[in-house]
Amino acid sequence: SNIQQRSYASLENETAKTAEIHKKVPSNVVSYTADIYTHLKRNPNFKELSPDDIKFFQSILSPSELIVGNGNNQDDLIPYNTDWMKKYRGKSKLVAKPKTTAQISKLVKYCNEKKLAIVPQGGNTGLVGGSVPVFDEIVISTNNLNKIRKFDPLSGTLVCDSGCILEVLDNYLAEQGYMVPLDLGAKGSCHIGGNVATNAGGIRLLRYGSLHGTVLGLEVVLPDGTILDNLSTLRKDNTGYDIKHLFIGSEGTLGIITGVSILTPKRPKSVNVAVFCLNSFQKVQEAFIISKGELSEILSAFEFWDVNALKLVKDHLVQGASFPLEDKYPFYILVETSGSNKDHNDEVGVVENGVVAQDNTQIRNLWSIREGIPEAGSKAGSVYKYDLSIPVPVFYNIIEDMGNRLKDAGIFGKDKLVTDVVGYGHIGDGNIHLNIVAKSYSPEVAKLTEPYVYEWTEKHKGSISAEHGLGLMKADCIGYSKSQKMINMMKQIKQSIDPNVSIGSKTIQTPAIEKRVADTYIGTTKCIVKRFPVITGPIIPVL
Amino acid sequence: SNIQQRSYASLENETAKTAEIHKKVPSNVVSYTADIYTHLKRNPNFKELSPDDIKFFQSILSPSELIVGNGNNQDDLIPYNTDWMKKYRGKSKLVAKPKTTAQISKLVKYCNEKKLAIVPQGGNTGLVGGSVPVFDEIVISTNNLNKIRKFDPLSGTLVCDSGCILEVLDNYLAEQGYMVPLDLGAKGSCHIGGNVATNAGGIRLLRYGSLHGTVLGLEVVLPDGTILDNLSTLRKDNTGYDIKHLFIGSEGTLGIITGVSILTPKRPKSVNVAVFCLNSFQKVQEAFIISKGELSEILSAFEFWDVNALKLVKDHLVQGASFPLEDKYPFYILVETSGSNKDHNDEVGVVENGVVAQDNTQIRNLWSIREGIPEAGSKAGSVYKYDLSIPVPVFYNIIEDMGNRLKDAGIFGKDKLVTDVVGYGHIGDGNIHLNIVAKSYSPEVAKLTEPYVYEWTEKHKGSISAEHGLGLMKADCIGYSKSQKMINMMKQIKQSIDPNVSIGSKTIQTPAIEKRVADTYIGTTKCIVKRFPVITGPIIPVL
Repeated sequence: SNIQQRSYASLENETAKTAEIHKKVPSNVVSYTADIYTHLKRNPNFKELSPDDIKFFQSILSPSELIVGNGNNQDDLIPYNTDWMKKYRGKSKLVAKPKTTAQISKLVKYCNEKKLAIVPQGGNTGLVGGSVPVFDEIVISTNNLNKIRKFDPLSGTLVCDSGCILEVLDNYLAEQGYMVPLDLGAKGSCHIGGNVATNAGGIRLLRYGSLHGTVLGLEVVLPDGTILDNLSTLRKDNTGYDIKHLFIGSEGTLGIITGVSILTPKRPKSVNVAVFCLNSFQKVQEAFIISKGELSEILSAFEFWDVNALKLVKDHLVQGASFPLEDKYPFYILVETSGSNKDHNDEVGVVENGVVAQDNTQIRNLWSIREGIPEAGSKAGSVYKYDLSIPVPVFYNIIEDMGNRLKDAGIFGKDKLVTDVVGYGHIGDGNIHLNIVAKSYSPEVAKLTEPYVYEWTEKHKGSISAEHGLGLMKADCIGYSKSQKMINMMKQIKQSIDPNVSIGSKTIQTPAIEKRVADTYIGTTKCIVKRFPVITGPIIPVL
Repeated sequence: SNIQQRSYASLENETAKTAEIHKKVPSNVVSYTADIYTHLKRNPNFKELSPDDIKFFQSILSPSELIVGNGNNQDDLIPYNTDWMKKYRGKSKLVAKPKTTAQISKLVKYCNEKKLAIVPQGGNTGLVGGSVPVFDEIVISTNNLNKIRKFDPLSGTLVCDSGCILEVLDNYLAEQGYMVPLDLGAKGSCHIGGNVATNAGGIRLLRYGSLHGTVLGLEVVLPDGTILDNLSTLRKDNTGYDIKHLFIGSEGTLGIITGVSILTPKRPKSVNVAVFCLNSFQKVQEAFIISKGELSEILSAFEFWDVNALKLVKDHLVQGASFPLEDKYPFYILVETSGSNKDHNDEVGVVENGVVAQDNTQIRNLWSIREGIPEAGSKAGSVYKYDLSIPVPVFYNIIEDMGNRLKDAGIFGKDKLVTDVVGYGHIGDGNIHLNIVAKSYSPEVAKLTEPYVYEWTEKHKGSISAEHGLGLMKADCIGYSKSQKMINMMKQIKQSIDPNVSIGSKTIQTPAIEKRVADTYIGTTKCIVKRFPVITGPIIPVL
């Protein structure tokens, strides 16, 4: 099906791009987090790893399930100590890769009793430094926890280990006519447990909702080693507090998710994609309202980008290829529909111009414009990335305000320190990505962007992390999006579930099994964009 | 629109039926809960109401916002002390009906300090005795907390007071082309806050998911009077634990919900309904799989009932009217589709026979068969009602097993104590309703049904309360659906948020703003069923 082809395309792109980025910066030259962020102090309440501790781990796990740092095998530890962005690097000397929930329970219980700090790690594809150690935390990886436990084709409920790779699950479900209600650029390497722990969003959220709506149950190892078995497959169960929601989005700070039960929707039989050009952000909003009204239940994505983002892609991603879209319009939207019926019609009266995909290849190629933006940015320079939820009416203002702010400071323009300020994102979810491309990372830029972006977002009652989570990067910034009363309540809950560790401790607060998000990392180095039919004047495209 | 007409029809039915039932048993002769359930003891930690306490309430609320029992106005207190089922009756002498969150905060803070027990009450339409006092708890009603605060037609986010009546909200949204993603028989009187507090289900859950997916934010008065302001309108916000989920389904035991922010979907332009007859429950399952596959995103309800339920409706609800369906098939399904497009086609190959609604009147009438079952049951006798989530493959077995059990005991049959055992429910959600109609409530029946039904449900990993909640009725039965570890964690959370009251205390554990559920209470006394076109043989109906 179309959807399946998109998945494979994503995997291809991902692998190619991951390889490319890994080439650029060797992992062993990434600076240690503790050396860069010197305000972070190791919590002295945690003890250091002893030979006895290693012996205990060896008594639970086989040699292939354990990496013990011994001076000769630093390279083996690096992938677990370094985040995908090559921005953070910890100093762990012990990586455990258990195969069973029972093993994890024993290890966590031991660590809790001995006061050894741990960091749970899934696919390690996060953007906010939550999945890697800061100091010498023990890494507990879900890499080997990768069995599909049960699938019921009648109800569409899937139960699996938390270490299952998102794309593996999606391919498995495709054979049964179902799909995971979640689609991320990192699908080829992120784990479903990490997706749940970070409440990953992605491009299917508009249609299928958040994981709070689709996750039916969780199995979690609590900080004291208790296995909380709540792997319900029931769609309705009103017997007491719905505990699982605490763990969805808790970024690994309340326990380690070891099993996931999730409701999966039927795979759509038909997918259509169109890209439209618009003359103002006001028209983007109007097009969104019309699309919601006309397309309703078949609308599966409504993405937008500005002309600066398009120019970035044209300049840096597909040199020489002829593009289906002229860059003379300020705004562009991508509308995807999917459903059981091929003959839906639509009329979007506010657009100036547009192209409609005629086949699966063109569908992929239209998506690749949108998905190529982050990669084009990283080719153009060092990118400051902000992932914000902002009420749609003021959605685009942050891009303009930031551009003006940097211009006023005299550092934004051709041949200046900052070369591009672009906006793109999931307009359907109110989630915008502000990317600032600079010639290099520099305190001069950082001082102008932070806390300005966070204060701006707070003023408009937005969220400083729409889908990436807090991690290490934004742990101190939670106050911009949550009141002190809310934070106090979170502390109470953390204290109640994990009494040995206060939420303020950097050593265990930050561990999070991670996600990486579609729009930020999907890209392609093989983008072959054909000449699409460009319809001029007002159009009534068949979606 | 069609949907709107259904709403009005429901309201009509509801009002008619409520009036009828209220006629049967005058409220002032309902026995006191404390007299019937003598194992319930008043928690002596709570103090009794004093004249000073009443003075404090009078200092916060105007006379019209307060009912103080004084011996002469018992009748005014009765509606707040008695539940909708006329099954439970408390002895409260003080009912507060504040207009603002600030008032509620002051009252709750005072009660917490003085150790006065309170019970939050919404529309008081619950089925499990959670919204009325057991002893002398003060009732805090959300009746006067009924303002729509804000609606954004771009994003579809609605922010309102918790005391808004569900149907008032739905009518308000209809004018803007939107709808509440929730539909209940009690919509004419239940409050949105009660819906959220009890995680109400209803017939739209199949399409729009649970409130955990659609509620964006809550304003809650915590037990110490703190106002937790989390009325976010953001669809995505990953900054810390998502606290609101604790309150969704907590039945008023963690705080009083005073404001709700909810994502509302576009109102469908087209609704179609068909009823089909099937020869086995196996075929019901096959029809469900086919419908999910073929109808996918436009499927909005998939309800089922057995022939015994149909006979009940024929015998007791519409005497003399000719029915569109013969009662010669063992199973019936109602399939509703709704969407933006009128020309969806469907093929359901496994059905034996069926009728397709040709207009809005016929849509309502087909629904009235399904919705008339509970009322027909209550006309036939005293009904034991069980609301169960059961995995679909063994979904119908509980009806057969229970029938056999009662037959084996010699009490089920014509002229016996039990006259009917019927099954119906939301097959799309795995939610079945087992109704046992007896000539009168009798320990002989109760002993055979409980704990048998709960044990049976536990064995099949089901839920003993799919959508009604625990309330007072099932508070002690939570162990059939939740492990001791889960219950311990709930206790920890209760203890953390409400340290003055242990979760075991009946006096405050049970207060819940309530819901009543579509399938259990929608009915009609004015059901005029026309002769529908009955298509014989295998059919390919246009839905």
